Amino acid sequence: MKSYAEMNEAGRLLALAEARASYELAKGKGLKLDITRGKPNLEQVQLSNGMFGAITEQDFFLDGVDTRNYGNPGGLPSTKKLFAEIMDVDPAQVFVGGNASLQLMYDTVAKAYTNGLWNSPHPWSQEEKVKFLCPCPGYDRHFHLSLSFGMELIPIAMSPDGPDMDAVEAAVADPAVKGIWCVPKYSNPDGYVYSAAVCERMANLKPAAPDFVILWDNAYVVHDIFDEVKDIPNILALCAAAGRPNMCITFASTSKITFAGGGVSAFAAGPEQLAHLAKLIGLQTIGYNKVNEMLHVRFLKDLPTVKALMARHAAIVRPKFEAVLDALDKEIAPLGIAKWSKPNGGYFVSLYAMPGTAKRAHQLCKEAGVTLTPAGASYPNNFDPDDSNLRIAPTFVTLEEITQAMQVLVECLKIAALEKLLA
Amino acid sequence: MKSYAEMNEAGRLLALAEARASYELAKGKGLKLDITRGKPNLEQVQLSNGMFGAITEQDFFLDGVDTRNYGNPGGLPSTKKLFAEIMDVDPAQVFVGGNASLQLMYDTVAKAYTNGLWNSPHPWSQEEKVKFLCPCPGYDRHFHLSLSFGMELIPIAMSPDGPDMDAVEAAVADPAVKGIWCVPKYSNPDGYVYSAAVCERMANLKPAAPDFVILWDNAYVVHDIFDEVKDIPNILALCAAAGRPNMCITFASTSKITFAGGGVSAFAAGPEQLAHLAKLIGLQTIGYNKVNEMLHVRFLKDLPTVKALMARHAAIVRPKFEAVLDALDKEIAPLGIAKWSKPNGGYFVSLYAMPGTAKRAHQLCKEAGVTLTPAGASYPNNFDPDDSNLRIAPTFVTLEEITQAMQVLVECLKIAALEKLLA
Repeated sequence: MKSYAEMNEAGRLLALAEARASYELAKGKGLKLDITRGKPNLEQVQLSNGMFGAITEQDFFLDGVDTRNYGNPGGLPSTKKLFAEIMDVDPAQVFVGGNASLQLMYDTVAKAYTNGLWNSPHPWSQEEKVKFLCPCPGYDRHFHLSLSFGMELIPIAMSPDGPDMDAVEAAVADPAVKGIWCVPKYSNPDGYVYSAAVCERMANLKPAAPDFVILWDNAYVVHDIFDEVKDIPNILALCAAAGRPNMCITFASTSKITFAGGGVSAFAAGPEQLAHLAKLIGLQTIGYNKVNEMLHVRFLKDLPTVKALMARHAAIVRPKFEAVLDALDKEIAPLGIAKWSKPNGGYFVSLYAMPGTAKRAHQLCKEAGVTLTPAGASYPNNFDPDDSNLRIAPTFVTLEEITQAMQVLVECLKIAALEKLLA
Repeated sequence: MKSYAEMNEAGRLLALAEARASYELAKGKGLKLDITRGKPNLEQVQLSNGMFGAITEQDFFLDGVDTRNYGNPGGLPSTKKLFAEIMDVDPAQVFVGGNASLQLMYDTVAKAYTNGLWNSPHPWSQEEKVKFLCPCPGYDRHFHLSLSFGMELIPIAMSPDGPDMDAVEAAVADPAVKGIWCVPKYSNPDGYVYSAAVCERMANLKPAAPDFVILWDNAYVVHDIFDEVKDIPNILALCAAAGRPNMCITFASTSKITFAGGGVSAFAAGPEQLAHLAKLIGLQTIGYNKVNEMLHVRFLKDLPTVKALMARHAAIVRPKFEAVLDALDKEIAPLGIAKWSKPNGGYFVSLYAMPGTAKRAHQLCKEAGVTLTPAGASYPNNFDPDDSNLRIAPTFVTLEEITQAMQVLVECLKIAALEKLLA
C-alpha cells in the first residue's frame, strides 16, 4: 500500500472513491455509537456489585465509628489508609471527600477564589488576572471549570514524557500564573506517563506566585491495561524534598475502580495546605458520605485487592483498545496520514489526524452515526491550533461496537485527508 | 415554692447553698454527657439498616439508568419525585445533590461570590459589602459559612411566628442586603414554625438587590415529634404568585430521615435560578452519588413511607424531649428564672436563662461533665446580647443520660441566677 504522500492525483482520486464507497456502506447500517466519554461499561461496574453483600449491624462501624451518623469530616482512618496505599502517600496527608474527585478539584479552585489557598496573599477573586497552565491536549473538564472562574488558560505542549518543562519553568516566572493542571499517569487523552525527570522538575519549580499550585489529577493511578505498569514518583515527597511541601495537591477516586456513579474521592497535600483546605471544607459540609466509605473499605480492603480488581477491569477493556489500535495499524499506518498514542492504561486513545482534518473527520463520523468527542475539545477554549487531535474512548461500547466504530473512523480519516490533499 | 424574685436575701442564700450541694453531688458522679449537636442516636439510624437488603443486579437500575455509571447530574426522576413529595414542590423544581444539604447551601453562596446568582449584576466578590439577614437565635453553621465569605451578618429577632418581618422588610431596602437564612419549620434552636402570614410577607418582599435570595433550609420538614403537625405554606409557590419565582431556594435532606452519615440532599428553586445553578454545578461535578439515590428511593418509596419512618423516629426521641421539658417545668418554672420553647418537632429545646447567666451556667455544666453548645453559638459572631440562650440537643444521648444531664443543668441555672441576684 502506498502512502497518500507518495500517490499521484489519480491514485488519490481512486483512493477517495474507494473510501467513500466503504463509508457509504457503513453509513447505510444506521449505526448509533457513542465513543465520546471515558465511561466504564456494564461488565466493569458489575465487578463491584459485591460491595452490597449482606451488611450486618457491626459492619456499619468502621474504626469504632458509626458510619451512619455525623462526624469525622475528611474521612475515617481506614479510608485514609486505603487511599494512602492507592496514592502512594502518607495517611496523614489524605482528606477523603464525596463521590467525585472533580468536585474536590473544583472546590479547591473555588476556595482559592473566595478565600485563597495556603500562602495566598489574598483571594484570587481580588487578583487582576489569574493564569493557569494547561498541558494539552488535556482534560476538557479541567479547562471548563477554570474558565468558569475567568482564568486565562495557557497551553503547554505535551510530549510522551509529560508537559514541556522548559515552557512551564519559563511561564511560572509570571506571578499571575497560579498553577498547572496535570494528569500524570495515562494523561487524558494521550495516555502518556510523566517521566521521573519531568516530575523532578515539576517539584523543583520556583514560581513567582507564593501560592502557585500543582493540581495533580491522578485519575488513572491504578488503571493499567497492558502488562507494562509504569509507576510515577511520589510528587508530594519530591515537593517536600525541594522545600515546597505545600505546592502540590494530588487527587484520586474510585470512580473507575468501583462505581462511576457512587465512588469515593480523596486528595492529599502537604501539612499546611491540608489543614487550610480541611478548615475551609469544614464550613462546607458536616462530613461526606461515611456509609459509602465503609462499603468501599470493606470491599477494596488494600492495594493488592484493588490491583486484583483493576486486573479484571483491564481484561474487559484490553480487547477494545486492541481493536482500536489494530484498525489504525492496519488501515491508517501505511497511508502516513495520522499518528496515535499506544497507552498502557487509562481510558483513551489519542489520535492525531492529518493537520486540518480533525473537524472534518469528526463531522463525517457523526453523519455515519459514530459520535466522537468534538475535535479540539481537549484544548483550552476548544481550540486545537492544528485541527488534528481526536479522542477515542473505547470502554463503554461493546467490542463489536468499537470495531464497527473504527471501521467508520478509518474511512473518515482517509476521506478527510484525501479531500484536503486534492483541494 | 417561691420564685427567686419573691425571695429575700436569706432565702436566696439558702437556695444557693441547696443548689450547690445538689450540683456537687452530681459533679461527683463523673458524668461525661454531650448534648451539643442535633445528632440522631443509634436506635434512630438503625431504623434504616434495611436500606442495605439484598440488592440485585436489576435494583441498580433506576428509571432505566444504571446508577453505578456516570450521568444524570441533578438526580434521577424517581429521586426528584420523592424529594418533591417531601418538600411539597414540583419535581421539575428539584435538584438532587450529595449527602449533605449544608454543602448545597455553601455551594450556592460560593457560586454567588464567584459567578453570581441568577440576576446578579456581578459576582458578590465584586460587591463592596454583602449583608445577610440572620433570624436569631439560628443555626450556627449558616452564620459561620457566611462569615467565611466576609459577609456582614444582621441579626433579626425571632418570635414563635418566625422572623420579625417589620425588621426584614425594612432591611431589604438596603441593596447591600443580599439574602436571608431561614429554618422555617422547627427553627434551630427554638423549634418555632413560621406562620402563614410570615411566609406570605417573606414571599412578598421587594428587596432593593435584584439577586436577593431567601435560603430556606427546610431541615426538619417531616421531623414531627408530638402529635400536632404544623405544615408551612409552599414558599416557592408564594414567591411565584408574588411575581418573584426565583427569589427563594429551598433545601432538604434525608440526613435525619435515614443516615446523617450517608443521606441524600436536594434543593428546589424557580426555573431560572434552578437552570443557573444546575449549569454552574455541572462544572463542579459529573454527578452526585446515584447509587445512594437508588438505595434511598427503594427504601423511602414515597411520602407516606417517609412519614411512617419519621413516626418511628418520633417514638424514640419523644421521651427525651419530655424529660427535658419535665425537668424544666418541675425545677425551673416555679423559680421564674428562665423560659423555654416547647417544640413540636426538630432536634432542640431552646432555653432562655436569666439574662446575663447563660455563659456561667454553661461553664458550670461543663465542669460537671455536661457539654452544651457554647452560650451565644446560635447568634451571629457568637454574640448573644442578652447572654441568655442555651441550646439543648436531647436526641443523641439515652433517656437516662438526658435525665441526668437535666438534673445538672437545672442546678447550674439556679446557681448562675442566684449568684447574679446576690452579687
